Amino acid sequence: MNNTTNHPAGYSIAEGNAASRNAYSWSKKTFPNRAGKPGEPARDLDGGFSNEIRFGTERLGISSDGIGTKIEVAERLNKYDTLGYDLIAMTADDLIAAGFVPTNLSNIIDVNHLDYDVVDEMMRGLHDAANFAGMAITGGEIAELGNRIGGWPGARMNFNWCSTAIGVLHPSLPQPLSGNTARAGHAVVALRSPSFRSNGYSLARKTLQRVFGDNWHEAPFQLAVSSEQLTKQASTDKLPSTWGEAMLAPSLIYAPGVAALLDAGLPLHGVAHITGGGLADNFQRVLKNGVGAVLDNLFEPLPAMRRLMEIGDISAETAYLYWNMGTGMLLVTEPDSADAVVASLQASGYDAQVAGRLTEEQGVTLRVAAGELRYT
Amino acid sequence: MNNTTNHPAGYSIAEGNAASRNAYSWSKKTFPNRAGKPGEPARDLDGGFSNEIRFGTERLGISSDGIGTKIEVAERLNKYDTLGYDLIAMTADDLIAAGFVPTNLSNIIDVNHLDYDVVDEMMRGLHDAANFAGMAITGGEIAELGNRIGGWPGARMNFNWCSTAIGVLHPSLPQPLSGNTARAGHAVVALRSPSFRSNGYSLARKTLQRVFGDNWHEAPFQLAVSSEQLTKQASTDKLPSTWGEAMLAPSLIYAPGVAALLDAGLPLHGVAHITGGGLADNFQRVLKNGVGAVLDNLFEPLPAMRRLMEIGDISAETAYLYWNMGTGMLLVTEPDSADAVVASLQASGYDAQVAGRLTEEQGVTLRVAAGELRYT
Repeated sequence: MNNTTNHPAGYSIAEGNAASRNAYSWSKKTFPNRAGKPGEPARDLDGGFSNEIRFGTERLGISSDGIGTKIEVAERLNKYDTLGYDLIAMTADDLIAAGFVPTNLSNIIDVNHLDYDVVDEMMRGLHDAANFAGMAITGGEIAELGNRIGGWPGARMNFNWCSTAIGVLHPSLPQPLSGNTARAGHAVVALRSPSFRSNGYSLARKTLQRVFGDNWHEAPFQLAVSSEQLTKQASTDKLPSTWGEAMLAPSLIYAPGVAALLDAGLPLHGVAHITGGGLADNFQRVLKNGVGAVLDNLFEPLPAMRRLMEIGDISAETAYLYWNMGTGMLLVTEPDSADAVVASLQASGYDAQVAGRLTEEQGVTLRVAAGELRYT
Repeated sequence: MNNTTNHPAGYSIAEGNAASRNAYSWSKKTFPNRAGKPGEPARDLDGGFSNEIRFGTERLGISSDGIGTKIEVAERLNKYDTLGYDLIAMTADDLIAAGFVPTNLSNIIDVNHLDYDVVDEMMRGLHDAANFAGMAITGGEIAELGNRIGGWPGARMNFNWCSTAIGVLHPSLPQPLSGNTARAGHAVVALRSPSFRSNGYSLARKTLQRVFGDNWHEAPFQLAVSSEQLTKQASTDKLPSTWGEAMLAPSLIYAPGVAALLDAGLPLHGVAHITGGGLADNFQRVLKNGVGAVLDNLFEPLPAMRRLMEIGDISAETAYLYWNMGTGMLLVTEPDSADAVVASLQASGYDAQVAGRLTEEQGVTLRVAAGELRYT
């Protein structure tokens, strides 16, 4: 698939990737500043840099991210106490995907003008999410930036919210998980996502705005005839009553479940956190040494995603490029451990299932209800 | 002084402080999540929490902050390669003020729409600043947020930029610097600031806009008669040619100089990084156990600050509340080490001088050219 030809969300994933690569190349030039000192970036088995930094014998990971434009949904609903789950999920689950158990979080709230009560609601939710994730919030900053911050005009306060999380490499791992040890024949376990997490909101909001107008968040959430036959899993979620509610559903934080299966001694060879760029793009970054994958037992896309595809005339190709399509994390494990990995995740309260396997043939094939999608 | 009655910058410092205190109280409730585990928040001698987090025997600090509205000046001048110094100064110097030597930085760039070249210039400057500070940039994220980000309309790209820095407690320190061991009679050493750093821009921009109009950044920078008699120190700075240039002058990063004097075994009992809220407010946070201070030998305010006071009819009280007034950091040391501390900082390339002393009488007194300012 070519990510550059269409920009249905209004921005280019390829341009973003190029700027990120360039930013990383500037960053890498600063790594020698810590050579042989605390904070030294570690190298992986292949001699490249892993995302581990060393302090004495401690092996830490660090991850930064924000909630993005999902905040507009909270502004529209005037409900701010679930965004903390999104904020923590973005960084904590990037860390656990590399084998780091998230421990600490520092957050920055940029506001146009300060509203004490909105910040209070946000922090209450962040507190709840930190308890869920077993993390301590050990840093924070609130900055009042006036017209540098925009958002939904009807909101009490417009803001952007980002954080940096720190984690420790799980003691069972000789090095961060990178996919380097993944082999054809390994099994792929999927973790279900009950929400959009924090990605794909530009495309979703654009579609909802076009179909329902300025107050799309108040539009009743109704399934079309073709979406009514929900799968067993999807039907266990309470259906939202409005589109606003559907889009605000918080991110499930996977880190505790993945940490628990590592605690149990189960083997992992790579983990993909499905964020911007969709399922295949995020999973391909984990596939090294020329292996590919066939995923023929993924979770069903969320009802909201299926409905958006219908009302927005969005192709499966586009939807799988911008949205997680019901699967928030993919874990590579050994075939005879796959059932135990699924059982461990289920015991931690997550929906998990064996979703496919790694192949000698390169590329990722998704066999989903919409047909077969190939990514090379 | 009462910080709540006047809002010459258009926002209330007191409201911001209340929201920050509330956010911290939510955060503190999450500290038990790491009790006895990696990432545990440490307690200080008095039983309260210090800003130290423990990983095994490693004692780390973490600090998050952004550049704020100074970015508008870079947008106006279309010059982005010095902001990295401001970004690193904010967090690195908060860390060293608590005794943590900054080691790693993770940064987040929020943009309205991505401009590859602007980000490239920003990252080049961040790279230069990281080399100056001896830090490695080991994390980063770029987020495209559309109309959630605003700024100067003529700019190629509008953005906000924040970062989180990690540091290690200097090995000579039994615990983070908090001011707990500061005593009446201790000496106060000042480090000169050749710029506004990243604080007080709302007030400065408001004044410049009123006096010079929309394109204030192009207005020639001229000193009035009353400002022409520059002190020796101020005259060693090259005078800016425009107001834009004056306001973009980058932050000096103090961390390497302070780390060097700790390396040399010189004693420190508290350090104040002068950021939002001005000289006295930031210094008062370091003064514990009822001690006060008289500072009668501070650096001269920058020419730009003196000129802004004149053209904007800004009182000394207000100016000292929002701007650093030429002093970027205050260090508390023992009286017979004060000259050695000054000499060490000068050997590292900084302008430093003994600025005053701690007193048994509470409150901070500034004896400056504008008169005597008392803060209780």
